[in-house]
Amino acid sequence: MATRTGAWAAVAAAAVVAVLSAALALYGSPLDAVLKRAFSLHNAHSVKGMEDALQLVRNIVPPLTAKKHKGQDGRVGVVGGCREYTGAPYFAAISALKVGADLSHVFCTQEAAPVIKAYSPELIVHPVLDSPDAVHDVGKWLPRLHALVVGPGLGRDDVLLSNVKDILEASKARGIPIVIDADGLWLIAQQPALIQGYQKAVLTPNHVEFSRLSEAVLGDPLDGQDRRGAVLRLSQALGNVTVVQKGERDVISDGKQDAHAGTHTLCQPWSLQQSVPMSGPAGKSEVTLGGPSSTRAPPPQCWECSQEGSGRRCGGQGDLLSGSLGVLVHWALQAGPERTDGFSPLLVAAFGACTLTRQCSHQAFQKHGRSTTTTDMIAEVGPAFSRLFET
Amino acid sequence: MATRTGAWAAVAAAAVVAVLSAALALYGSPLDAVLKRAFSLHNAHSVKGMEDALQLVRNIVPPLTAKKHKGQDGRVGVVGGCREYTGAPYFAAISALKVGADLSHVFCTQEAAPVIKAYSPELIVHPVLDSPDAVHDVGKWLPRLHALVVGPGLGRDDVLLSNVKDILEASKARGIPIVIDADGLWLIAQQPALIQGYQKAVLTPNHVEFSRLSEAVLGDPLDGQDRRGAVLRLSQALGNVTVVQKGERDVISDGKQDAHAGTHTLCQPWSLQQSVPMSGPAGKSEVTLGGPSSTRAPPPQCWECSQEGSGRRCGGQGDLLSGSLGVLVHWALQAGPERTDGFSPLLVAAFGACTLTRQCSHQAFQKHGRSTTTTDMIAEVGPAFSRLFET
Repeated sequence: MATRTGAWAAVAAAAVVAVLSAALALYGSPLDAVLKRAFSLHNAHSVKGMEDALQLVRNIVPPLTAKKHKGQDGRVGVVGGCREYTGAPYFAAISALKVGADLSHVFCTQEAAPVIKAYSPELIVHPVLDSPDAVHDVGKWLPRLHALVVGPGLGRDDVLLSNVKDILEASKARGIPIVIDADGLWLIAQQPALIQGYQKAVLTPNHVEFSRLSEAVLGDPLDGQDRRGAVLRLSQALGNVTVVQKGERDVISDGKQDAHAGTHTLCQPWSLQQSVPMSGPAGKSEVTLGGPSSTRAPPPQCWECSQEGSGRRCGGQGDLLSGSLGVLVHWALQAGPERTDGFSPLLVAAFGACTLTRQCSHQAFQKHGRSTTTTDMIAEVGPAFSRLFET
Repeated sequence: MATRTGAWAAVAAAAVVAVLSAALALYGSPLDAVLKRAFSLHNAHSVKGMEDALQLVRNIVPPLTAKKHKGQDGRVGVVGGCREYTGAPYFAAISALKVGADLSHVFCTQEAAPVIKAYSPELIVHPVLDSPDAVHDVGKWLPRLHALVVGPGLGRDDVLLSNVKDILEASKARGIPIVIDADGLWLIAQQPALIQGYQKAVLTPNHVEFSRLSEAVLGDPLDGQDRRGAVLRLSQALGNVTVVQKGERDVISDGKQDAHAGTHTLCQPWSLQQSVPMSGPAGKSEVTLGGPSSTRAPPPQCWECSQEGSGRRCGGQGDLLSGSLGVLVHWALQAGPERTDGFSPLLVAAFGACTLTRQCSHQAFQKHGRSTTTTDMIAEVGPAFSRLFET
């Protein structure tokens, strides 16, 4: 009988294993994630902090209900796409859709439009950015847009940059949140006043773009040893515009004090005061920052995202980030600070977009290795978003 | 020992059930559908009604036989596609093909044509809608078309709308069934007489489009509490044009009396007289409608489609519906009322298209979650159609 009992146990175990294996083989990702979460307790402290930060992002994700109408979960506009560059605005706009926007517009040049249209029937592409009426042609859509992503594939043509300058002014006048990347940041480096003090703006510079901005705004050569301090100084010098410096870790700050400093442990793994001591900010920002010592006022908050990504650095990943961020910024502002536990909605949105982009890169790399391109990463937006934010 | 064996068996069964439940919670669709089909008998009455309604749709689907020639199962034309919009007419036209039309034409502007052509080699795309001879250029194709879908990606350019007005007149003169959506409905809101009394027309407004039409035709602000009454009034005011108001549930009516009222239970779950009592229609429609009381003439029929869809509201789903409806309207009219058990063929076609669109949305969402776009839904047309209408 003991043997029979053992046989029953074996059958039971085999059945469970078979079902689990079949389910894993069929569906891979979610079950995999569940199991991973279940067995990640060896790193409880880190997981807890990460989980809490991810929870803030989850809090801003709008529920999908049968009662909603088209457009309510986000109408995003991407400003970019010119003679040379057509992929970047496509990557940004399709990423916005795949994160969960309902409608995704691209405002590009006449010449770029048919190509961007042909990449995907999901996008609404307006061939207006080099027209004499560009500002009017884009401006009439602004009342319908929840967020603008400015820069992917924009290029540096003077006429286009001049049009984009006026589009930025019109968008600011309407209070539309604006993500600025790529050659949009080139424009800001030429004319920082364009974005000065507009606290619904998020800049997403990579290493080179950050150096250029830092030089233009602060006159500082970039101190590679103090990335946090550099991000803080730039953000504060721009009047608390949110800055996301992309890199080995993404550093995010709006230069403001952490609302929870000293009383709240929620996000300490990413907040300035807890990890590596920051070297004192130099020059004009010193007083505002409160200096490096914890005996002064609470230090400004500075988050870091170190979600595992991949070593691939193919072009287009920044567009995935900026497009995703366009949606998340809208959701975060709509949710408001009560859903983000008092943290800046833009910081939460930026953390979400950085985490998502890195997770997409990671998942794509697992499948495609060195041959991974941005298209492979965009194919991971759905599963990555679900794994990170819908569990 | 027998007890122990039983305990093992119970553990085994519990484990399998737990894993199955977890899998169901995570993945929904395939397992879920199988179990639902197997165990839905607790709600036999409702399932029976739904099944009967689906059977009416099945009755109009033409058999595929070796004796048929190209074109016999449907030649559908989509009128739309302009400077900004190229995705919408593609979605409508490809959906028509995937539902089962043999040929799918798009009549669009010169500029939009190459892009729409590039989306798919399956479509026949005519770059004529902004030509001075647009009406002639489209008109010469009308004798070969079984149904017209007017509006996807049409835009609001005055020249285009004027051409479409004349195309509508020419199509009516030939008795061609016409589905009108999107900016085609904008045109109808400007000139309701264009469609007045044409009982081979089906309008498919969403929430915003319905409000605009209702305001234009009835001068009524939309009463969100009485969607059925609103749809009935609009349909009757337009001379019994079939109206499909898309929403949390799709409400469908041609404003006519239910041929089976009081004698037939077939479609009662969707017919007006059985579910929530309708508030009495106001104003000019009161006498025609017969009022809210069942002591008067049988009330007009009003169907609802509440097939499970998804919470995704990305752009393009309406095009899937209008394109599918183009084919189904042709099939339903060809089948005639004897195949639809005396119900209006257009109501049956509309119910079929709504059910199919929701099922596509549901299936796509099960696979892609929040990242679902219309392209994912169109990929489900085949399996969804088969599951609903070919069992």
